[in-house]
Amino acid sequence: MERLQARYELESPLELERAAEVIAGEQSCGTFMRLPGETDALRERSGARIEALTVTGTSSTPSLPCRKSSDTYTRGEVTLSWPLDNMGTSLTNVLATVAGNLFELAEVSALRLLDVTFPPAFAEAYAGPAFGVEGTRRLAGVEGRPMIGTIIKPSVGLSPEETAAMVSDLIDGGIDFIKDDELQGNGPHCPLQARVDAVMRVVNDRAQRVGRKAMVAFNITGEIDEMKRNADYVQAAGGTCVMVSLHSLGLAGLGAIRRHVSLPLHCHRNGWGLFSRSPDIGVSYVAWQKFWRLAGADHLHVNGLANKFSESDASVIASAKAVGTPLFGGDAPSFAAMPVFSSGQTAAQMAPTFAAVGTEDFLYCAGGGIMGHPGGTAAGVMSLRQAAEAAMAGIPIDDYARDHGELAAALSLFKDRR
Amino acid sequence: MERLQARYELESPLELERAAEVIAGEQSCGTFMRLPGETDALRERSGARIEALTVTGTSSTPSLPCRKSSDTYTRGEVTLSWPLDNMGTSLTNVLATVAGNLFELAEVSALRLLDVTFPPAFAEAYAGPAFGVEGTRRLAGVEGRPMIGTIIKPSVGLSPEETAAMVSDLIDGGIDFIKDDELQGNGPHCPLQARVDAVMRVVNDRAQRVGRKAMVAFNITGEIDEMKRNADYVQAAGGTCVMVSLHSLGLAGLGAIRRHVSLPLHCHRNGWGLFSRSPDIGVSYVAWQKFWRLAGADHLHVNGLANKFSESDASVIASAKAVGTPLFGGDAPSFAAMPVFSSGQTAAQMAPTFAAVGTEDFLYCAGGGIMGHPGGTAAGVMSLRQAAEAAMAGIPIDDYARDHGELAAALSLFKDRR
Repeated sequence: MERLQARYELESPLELERAAEVIAGEQSCGTFMRLPGETDALRERSGARIEALTVTGTSSTPSLPCRKSSDTYTRGEVTLSWPLDNMGTSLTNVLATVAGNLFELAEVSALRLLDVTFPPAFAEAYAGPAFGVEGTRRLAGVEGRPMIGTIIKPSVGLSPEETAAMVSDLIDGGIDFIKDDELQGNGPHCPLQARVDAVMRVVNDRAQRVGRKAMVAFNITGEIDEMKRNADYVQAAGGTCVMVSLHSLGLAGLGAIRRHVSLPLHCHRNGWGLFSRSPDIGVSYVAWQKFWRLAGADHLHVNGLANKFSESDASVIASAKAVGTPLFGGDAPSFAAMPVFSSGQTAAQMAPTFAAVGTEDFLYCAGGGIMGHPGGTAAGVMSLRQAAEAAMAGIPIDDYARDHGELAAALSLFKDRR
Repeated sequence: MERLQARYELESPLELERAAEVIAGEQSCGTFMRLPGETDALRERSGARIEALTVTGTSSTPSLPCRKSSDTYTRGEVTLSWPLDNMGTSLTNVLATVAGNLFELAEVSALRLLDVTFPPAFAEAYAGPAFGVEGTRRLAGVEGRPMIGTIIKPSVGLSPEETAAMVSDLIDGGIDFIKDDELQGNGPHCPLQARVDAVMRVVNDRAQRVGRKAMVAFNITGEIDEMKRNADYVQAAGGTCVMVSLHSLGLAGLGAIRRHVSLPLHCHRNGWGLFSRSPDIGVSYVAWQKFWRLAGADHLHVNGLANKFSESDASVIASAKAVGTPLFGGDAPSFAAMPVFSSGQTAAQMAPTFAAVGTEDFLYCAGGGIMGHPGGTAAGVMSLRQAAEAAMAGIPIDDYARDHGELAAALSLFKDRR
């Protein structure tokens, strides 16, 4: 029988093997005491199994407050597996199994979900990204280089007409992709449909004139029926992308939108810090992004190098690579999503980003990094295009800047980002 | 203009006021640099405001790894407010605002969302629990005492017929409420509709004979359309409750089910440890449960006293009280949900639970605490009923146990839970 696997980093006041047994029991057919119905045959059929266990260290104090105490807290990694029959090919029920009632257990003083290995049956059960990299490039008309994007700034406060004026300026500046900020939803000061009307007038007009349509990700995050209506509205207006805040939608919510909408889903991870900030509790991006790709995420945010947050560059790069790594072996589709770099990004971080991910298949979003450019929006966009050209040609950025003024100005302004 | 408020506990390598300004900027109209469009008028109209700030202490090391460093890390509480016009009465967009891209900021070395105050407009925009305490009592036919519930155990592994046999035994034993375990969804070994068929045959048969229908919360957690179909299926079969795992549904998902289904929504918080386990990152239950009550949660899990997890009893009681506290003042409905005690619960914890919450309006779920009773299921249920009688009559439990054998046996078996 196919089994689902999950790998954890954990710390426990007990021996690790005992802690792993408690988790395996709690997350399958056991409880705090053995009950009459928990027969050996049932345990054999439905129990979770410990597949691997490695001790990596010990300490004399618990990393997190813990009801059970000990003289020694042991840290290590554990891999558990479950028969797929327990939950079926259901992402929502996999989540309850591998990331449910276990983080609170008194038998762990630290617990992070590091990875989940979905058996091949999930490749049949879920459709995954409908557009991914190829579909996004086709709609945006951008091939052979990173896509240059931006976020409407200020994030909130602009009216639909002010937003459209900014979009107009950005398209004239050569931008490939524009997104609403995740704070800009469907509030009274800038209602979504009025924003779509105003912005798409500009986008469609420019597309007719230059033959390439800038992709605008309208943030439709809201109630399910509202999102469906608004996605239809975006599509009817000629729009080519919608954006959602994943943690507000949940896996079930994203799945519903994926099945309704035939537009790329630009997926924002706001709230991610709750899962990633502590070394002692949480979920790794590697595990997290697999759920959302199966559910249909086309674009996934991965933060950016030298970002304004606390995440290390190594973690950002690992995330960007993760979203492009095939979920299954063999002939299954890759379920690859397009990584979105965003957060304090400027021309200065383009070359190291390109070098680290090893491909031009990414979306590089800069807000202040474009609109803060001293030469204006067009110069801001140009500085990023030039930075990408230099990176792809293998030319040192400072050399390329010598006869590319927009890049030179950006590197001078954003020198603290290098 | 109405404003939304959120209160945080935070620690920062900067002065707290500066850290609060960064959060306020990031979560409204600012970014890492001031941009041309960020006019004074726009900031006045759309900016977040610092409403209160208290320093509670300092330390020389950061509580969480932090990109910015300092000799001193200052801890305290900050209250921010936002104009409601920024996000409108949208729970999903409130979440992106108060619990979005802020936990990762390099300007904080700890950040917990402690509370959210929703302006009265949300009482108009959201319907909240459709059943709550009164509706649940009416459907279950239980008045004037705590409802006694249980979880089907083993959690997974039983067939539909085996589940129905257990339900039969539980109803004969006098149970008020039965729930699927959150691990039991719609997998091939116990498909939901087959389980509903088998279980509701028993439930309806007993209801006809004794005039009172036990409430069974079938775990319908899944994709949105699947959940709607399955909720309809439960209702058509005469069922009176459905269960969902909140973190798999998201706020948007719960809202969709709330609008579709006219059954109480039994809401499971599995995964809650991710938000609660660390004192340095997360969301308080007080803040978290407000979102779900607005979205329609009828029953909310609050763990239990002397539970098998790491949560303190004080925290459990605070949570139970929170779900019954009115969300708004004045004539607005209370949006109260029914608290569900669960996790290692037995007859031993009933009296202290009743004393601490100060009301009999709760659902008290025991798994091993019922099925592990040496006298069998009926004796297990009876021990909880007797414990509740003693608690409500103000009779010391050991006195009451003297001529109530089921209670005496339970107290003896579960003496470590007192």
